[in-house]
Amino acid sequence: MESGGSTEVELFSYWRSSCSYRVRIALNLKGIKYEYKAVNLVKDGGEQKSEDYLKKNPQGFVPALAIDGHTLCESLPICEYLDENHTGDRNLYPTDPFLKYKCRQICEIINSGTQPLQNLAVLKKIKVDFGGDMNEWSKFYITKGLKSVEAVLADTKGKYCIGDEPTVADCFLVPQIYNANRFEVDMTQFPLINEIHENLKELQEFKDAHPDVMPDAPKDS
Amino acid sequence: MESGGSTEVELFSYWRSSCSYRVRIALNLKGIKYEYKAVNLVKDGGEQKSEDYLKKNPQGFVPALAIDGHTLCESLPICEYLDENHTGDRNLYPTDPFLKYKCRQICEIINSGTQPLQNLAVLKKIKVDFGGDMNEWSKFYITKGLKSVEAVLADTKGKYCIGDEPTVADCFLVPQIYNANRFEVDMTQFPLINEIHENLKELQEFKDAHPDVMPDAPKDS
Repeated sequence: MESGGSTEVELFSYWRSSCSYRVRIALNLKGIKYEYKAVNLVKDGGEQKSEDYLKKNPQGFVPALAIDGHTLCESLPICEYLDENHTGDRNLYPTDPFLKYKCRQICEIINSGTQPLQNLAVLKKIKVDFGGDMNEWSKFYITKGLKSVEAVLADTKGKYCIGDEPTVADCFLVPQIYNANRFEVDMTQFPLINEIHENLKELQEFKDAHPDVMPDAPKDS
Repeated sequence: MESGGSTEVELFSYWRSSCSYRVRIALNLKGIKYEYKAVNLVKDGGEQKSEDYLKKNPQGFVPALAIDGHTLCESLPICEYLDENHTGDRNLYPTDPFLKYKCRQICEIINSGTQPLQNLAVLKKIKVDFGGDMNEWSKFYITKGLKSVEAVLADTKGKYCIGDEPTVADCFLVPQIYNANRFEVDMTQFPLINEIHENLKELQEFKDAHPDVMPDAPKDS
């Protein structure tokens, strides 16, 4: 399937959601044009809980991607789908089987090992149920996750996470760094991640996916 | 690459670990013979923290799979690797692109949306940091996760999660049901999951991966 063709592509996204941010980068790397559909996660208790949105994603999460006649949810399966079914400007995965595995390993350290433990719903539950400190909790898990990523990168990194071409691992790393900064994680302990981040910041596909330039970002952010 | 050939395959596993259980099922479905290497997560503070084990998996998690000259961690990337690089008795993923996506969606609802929030390390932190009730917390997240899986299954199920052939989604579902039962989740609310579970229980590949028949299972379990 050719990307950027006649297929209408719509991304249901919230500017600050790290999972939406991952898919925005992936779409940009593939060169797939999409219409941005803002879903406000905080207004009126959250538009993601509206009847209309729940028809798109019954789990009530962002992102959701309408493409090829389907609406897809879950950022990593979306990236796998895009790469397997859409030609595009770049491949999101390395071709070498072991490097492809390493790429997925980095994604999962973030996707299942880090982000779920620091997402807003979990942090709120920590606060409401136990009076826990949301910042301390999220710092703990983001630091733990990024330490694991840093260890993997020692074997795989070039300019980017896996060698010198951006991959899906980079799509997952950058939004996790964004969250780390939100929660004031000490990033000086991750020299490899920082070096890669500096290189990724230069790429237009990453610039164009940044929360601050999304249509629904507050003007004073 | 032919499975069951001259390659030595070793699985570092703990009988009760749901992530190890997933990979045991996947290896059985692929027909890949492996040597079982028990890693006791509770004895002496946990063998997974030993210097020797950390060389295999610096994150200190089970499972780890030694195969093709590499040691792989993270259950879902392991399954993707096995399916893409080893022929075998079965394919772990459907060939239809949309069903393949749905298969991965189910895996991620469990892999990133459920299990990370009910793993033992997180439950211990809930208890130690806040005096929280580990059972209530895990019941909440397992119920939430399985509700999402149940909703997806309404569109995809046949005898198993995706139609009538077992896939990686089944490899992830069965260990999550095992955990649900450990934490006494009310399973009567998931009729589709229960129906699929009854069918999966009949398959030898699932029977042979069950925690109770692992070499390191306590004899009175």
